[in-house]
Amino acid sequence: MSPQVDRKARDRARFETVFKTVRDELVEHVRELGFPCDVVNWFSKNLDYNVPGGKLVRGLNVVETVEVLKDRPLTSKEYFQAAVLGWTVELLEACFLVSDDLIDSSVTRRGRPCWHRTSGVGLIAVNDASMLESSIYWLLKKHFRAESCYVDILELFHETIMRTEIGQLLDLITASGERVGLSTFSLSRHHKILLFKVAYYSFYLPVALAMRLCGIPNQQGHDDPYKAAASVLLPLGVHFQVQDDYLDFLGTSEGSAGTDIVEGKCTWCICTALAVASPAQRGVLDAHYGRRDVQSERKVRDIFKELSIQERFSVYEEKSLERVTLLLKRIEEGGAEQSRGGSHSERQLRREVFKIKFDKVHRRLK
Amino acid sequence: MSPQVDRKARDRARFETVFKTVRDELVEHVRELGFPCDVVNWFSKNLDYNVPGGKLVRGLNVVETVEVLKDRPLTSKEYFQAAVLGWTVELLEACFLVSDDLIDSSVTRRGRPCWHRTSGVGLIAVNDASMLESSIYWLLKKHFRAESCYVDILELFHETIMRTEIGQLLDLITASGERVGLSTFSLSRHHKILLFKVAYYSFYLPVALAMRLCGIPNQQGHDDPYKAAASVLLPLGVHFQVQDDYLDFLGTSEGSAGTDIVEGKCTWCICTALAVASPAQRGVLDAHYGRRDVQSERKVRDIFKELSIQERFSVYEEKSLERVTLLLKRIEEGGAEQSRGGSHSERQLRREVFKIKFDKVHRRLK
Repeated sequence: MSPQVDRKARDRARFETVFKTVRDELVEHVRELGFPCDVVNWFSKNLDYNVPGGKLVRGLNVVETVEVLKDRPLTSKEYFQAAVLGWTVELLEACFLVSDDLIDSSVTRRGRPCWHRTSGVGLIAVNDASMLESSIYWLLKKHFRAESCYVDILELFHETIMRTEIGQLLDLITASGERVGLSTFSLSRHHKILLFKVAYYSFYLPVALAMRLCGIPNQQGHDDPYKAAASVLLPLGVHFQVQDDYLDFLGTSEGSAGTDIVEGKCTWCICTALAVASPAQRGVLDAHYGRRDVQSERKVRDIFKELSIQERFSVYEEKSLERVTLLLKRIEEGGAEQSRGGSHSERQLRREVFKIKFDKVHRRLK
Repeated sequence: MSPQVDRKARDRARFETVFKTVRDELVEHVRELGFPCDVVNWFSKNLDYNVPGGKLVRGLNVVETVEVLKDRPLTSKEYFQAAVLGWTVELLEACFLVSDDLIDSSVTRRGRPCWHRTSGVGLIAVNDASMLESSIYWLLKKHFRAESCYVDILELFHETIMRTEIGQLLDLITASGERVGLSTFSLSRHHKILLFKVAYYSFYLPVALAMRLCGIPNQQGHDDPYKAAASVLLPLGVHFQVQDDYLDFLGTSEGSAGTDIVEGKCTWCICTALAVASPAQRGVLDAHYGRRDVQSERKVRDIFKELSIQERFSVYEEKSLERVTLLLKRIEEGGAEQSRGGSHSERQLRREVFKIKFDKVHRRLK
């Protein structure tokens, strides 16, 4: 194993030990309220099945960002707090996935049956998803009530959750189908779905939580570090998902292409195609996008080829990363200007915090 | 119209005007985030269909309690704040009803199709219910962020929601059916379901929110007014629902008996019957409870008669109200003792706040 892989595995293992603690605290709370075994066990299984087991990118990102901001090894207490905050983000992710899988009638998640398809669950998953959200607030009260950042953290969750839900609503009512064809699809709607449904909670939330934990205050107007963070992280989050859409169409080095076309998903590829298609090409797309047969998929893929989706993605990618790089540079310069006045942690913020995400997104297709 | 009915209608009408304001604020927020018309309209319809139109008992109870605690007519600003807080409780109720109706596959609510059964909604109701919850936090931030009670109010919602969800989980997994018979039913489980699933958010939450808004502080130990409020309101809430169960079995003066028996619901009547049934009677209940036919229902009703459910309810009712009356008296005495030290509003709390609920519950069967 390379030292980098080794370090990653250790970081993950350490982070996972904190899950055991918060999980036990939550289960113990339900037990202490006097609920019978079957309720306690159900809740415990809900946590174990849905919360760990993913890539833990968002949760680990909270810890990494706190480490970068402090610019020194964390004390055990600091590490524990950062990790608990990381797990609240993973709880939020679990809550969204359980709900989304139910709404989409999905079958598998992380290589196993979706929670709502496991024995006896079904629509009870609606309540289980809500309990995952409630667990966040319970943990925040237990571990952060005495901290000055407590209210800001609560509000960050409230705002992020509401935005994600509005994004999810936009996604859900942007449907393709025999009745509506592709008339609701557009690049601007697609951009809004990615921004609200995923970028806020996956890219902005972990960093903003870490900044709150480190006591970074808001500033007036354009100098606000939270606005600065959002201005870089949200476009990065959108970019990351456009890559996802593109990789589903193209297939990755490891796997074959995905199922977005036959499932009629609203993706960057179809929205880009619709923006430039001739009436004849548009007719083919309307007739064959979202049909579960090989012939239809082939016809859609042919149109995507005719419309140079591959080249258009390269252009998009270059422009988008250029834009983010520029934003990053502007923030760094702002940081340098302010560095005489700003604290050490504020200068740090401006240099490295975004790089973690930026490098991940940038290196992904190479 | 009697003066009392007239006053009630006026209180309700005034309270409803505040809904228009908070509804417009919420819809405007989504519009300002740049979402297209179909999203804005969907959210607006979600609010209009699910939030007003009920009895508004919980929401109005917040306003009534603030009026009792202040012991004088409220200023416009005070009324507005109390009413906004009342609507957040109604939003919570709407959130629970939308979810519960979906989970139970219910057909009608308030004489109309359930939200999930209206055109195009279906499982999107999962997300719509979550948006109703998020609306609460958005309104609290907008209208209470500057108040010293803000964090306490947020925590009150977080805690109430989590407890309601655990109660809902207990209810959902306390199933009757061919496989399990009635083996999961018991009076203690039934009590816990009523307490957690309904009493906290319907009876305690509105009063506790009003107390927070009036600035009533926590006290150490047994003198804590919030503990005192819970000690009376929670048993009252449970009692109210036991009445519900009983009225479903017996039928009210206005209507015929309900469908709890054929639907196999976990009610006070069946749990009481199971606690005293002979093995033979138990066999009949196991075989016929929860069957959708007239013969089975008749057999269950016969056993209920044999087991004197009607007389047992009278005994329960008397004992339960006696207990609440005693608790109320103890609080009043405590209040009188402390009245030299306590503020006017604290003394008031001890006398009238609970009477509103108590009288409603007490007069119900007369």
